[in-house]
Amino acid sequence: MDIPSFTFDIGAMKRSARKPEEGFLYDLLILGGGPAAMSATIYAARKMMKIAVLTKDFGGQMGYTSEIENYMGFQSISGRELTARFRDHIMQFDVPVHEGEKVIRLAADGEVYRVVMEYGSEYRGKAVIIATGKRDRHLNVPGEAELTGRGVAYCATCDAPFFRDKKVVVVGGGNSALTAAIDLLKVNASVVLLNFAEGWQADEIMLNNARQYGDKLSLLDMHQVLEIRGDRKVEAVRLLDRRSNGEKEIAVDGVFVEIGLLPNSDIIDEGLVRLSPLKEVVIDCGARTSREFIYGAGDVTTVPYKQIIISAGEGAKAALSAYEDLTKKGLI
Amino acid sequence: MDIPSFTFDIGAMKRSARKPEEGFLYDLLILGGGPAAMSATIYAARKMMKIAVLTKDFGGQMGYTSEIENYMGFQSISGRELTARFRDHIMQFDVPVHEGEKVIRLAADGEVYRVVMEYGSEYRGKAVIIATGKRDRHLNVPGEAELTGRGVAYCATCDAPFFRDKKVVVVGGGNSALTAAIDLLKVNASVVLLNFAEGWQADEIMLNNARQYGDKLSLLDMHQVLEIRGDRKVEAVRLLDRRSNGEKEIAVDGVFVEIGLLPNSDIIDEGLVRLSPLKEVVIDCGARTSREFIYGAGDVTTVPYKQIIISAGEGAKAALSAYEDLTKKGLI
Repeated sequence: MDIPSFTFDIGAMKRSARKPEEGFLYDLLILGGGPAAMSATIYAARKMMKIAVLTKDFGGQMGYTSEIENYMGFQSISGRELTARFRDHIMQFDVPVHEGEKVIRLAADGEVYRVVMEYGSEYRGKAVIIATGKRDRHLNVPGEAELTGRGVAYCATCDAPFFRDKKVVVVGGGNSALTAAIDLLKVNASVVLLNFAEGWQADEIMLNNARQYGDKLSLLDMHQVLEIRGDRKVEAVRLLDRRSNGEKEIAVDGVFVEIGLLPNSDIIDEGLVRLSPLKEVVIDCGARTSREFIYGAGDVTTVPYKQIIISAGEGAKAALSAYEDLTKKGLI
Repeated sequence: MDIPSFTFDIGAMKRSARKPEEGFLYDLLILGGGPAAMSATIYAARKMMKIAVLTKDFGGQMGYTSEIENYMGFQSISGRELTARFRDHIMQFDVPVHEGEKVIRLAADGEVYRVVMEYGSEYRGKAVIIATGKRDRHLNVPGEAELTGRGVAYCATCDAPFFRDKKVVVVGGGNSALTAAIDLLKVNASVVLLNFAEGWQADEIMLNNARQYGDKLSLLDMHQVLEIRGDRKVEAVRLLDRRSNGEKEIAVDGVFVEIGLLPNSDIIDEGLVRLSPLKEVVIDCGARTSREFIYGAGDVTTVPYKQIIISAGEGAKAALSAYEDLTKKGLI
């Protein structure tokens, strides 16, 4: 996932950070670039810990959100702009950053943790914060993979503008599905909002907003997508009505999949830290994992509710816990 | 605690909220006006819960912080301005607010919670978020109140970076005093660590760490601060040596008071929710207390680390947990 290039007058977006050193033993390695990782970076940098940030990109899922209205201090701000502000905040501290490559492995070498990047770079740390976030969950139905980018989409912020005046199915029942539906309604698309479960899990205020578009919105709960059909682009979806057990096919131009997220915990060596049945990193209320000097923050963890403000708070906790633990052991 | 009146172009600071209704049964009462309470308010309002906010003032301890440099999104902002921004964010939602009076009691009346205000108003709710914060334990010496924010500080994490290369007294003998001292030593401040009692209550390892800074650290136990002196900012402290009974004055640029915080939990009816030995409201990682439909957020709770970004995250959790629990029981 690359954030498209863009320019703000904030300036620092273009400031490039120095790269971390491979041989050096850092106090703390921060894995990820979303709100949790960025907040952890600020807190650790202010404690003057020797840190390195390792991430494919900055912003994470936040970067793809069109309008954010629930991050305290900003009544309404785009995900891109909030990302730019966070990144600018970090860049004040001259923190070494390895950006543009995925983290592919976190391992223990005795007392030291080792992090391997996509193209082979390795970094070493006394402590690690795992803040690698989540990725989109897929429907895993026939046609989905083949038609991704040809009508099948996972990011309304990115792709809604391509569906002006079209007919689209949005799959999901939570806030992200509603956000996608509203983004599409705003470009005059006709939207079928389809949820596997009964009812809707989104905020009432978002449902109300969507309902204001009248006939342009249809709501179908207790429905399942069986197949996405199309030759070179999406043409139809085949559905199961889970109440009547009847099948039907409806003609659509696009399918937005908004059914949740999978934690990016597969980089962690097996058994290194405890994972939940959903493969989230299990943390306590202080962002500590089951392993000494490994911390977890944000959407990759068992923290309840995946929200920017919560992730930013958890990132701060993780950095402060790392600082406290390393200080107590005399390791910094 | 009153926030002094001030004006921003944000405008909404002057918008006055409507008052809550005394007879009405609210879904959720939010007690407090700091970052935790304000973030809870945004999240609850977006869920369209019927809420009322009950607080002496907005901002809490944040309102008194000179420069905040660790709230993500703002590289540097005064506590006053961040408070104004948070308040403006809330006021968008037309939330009823009873402001200007302290909450003095939280009680249970069967299934309903009852909150009593300083001058006798009473409000009723199906659920309550306790976000009443903490207050600093003060030295209660001449000059302390007058010079707060002008060299007298209560939060090393927030304010240590402003004392680079300066001379500072840290008052206290426990871990928080040592943490403050180390934070200051790391920015090359000269630190006089001063304790009223004999010896030091902090962890030995923290004392050892502090001692590594050699001459930059002086230790004075059995000393008492008699007065903080300065015209427009801190210039000196007058001390009593409790062994010799002699007085002396030393020139300093700052005084960090680290003699503990007191949670504002004394409003809670005895036994209603579990308190820690330090009288903090015990919460789980979802901001739930020991009592159904009572939640705790921010500094009044057992959450580790008292930071704006953490409290804001905890407030969001508390509101989302309240919404989830009330929805599950069909109460909203």
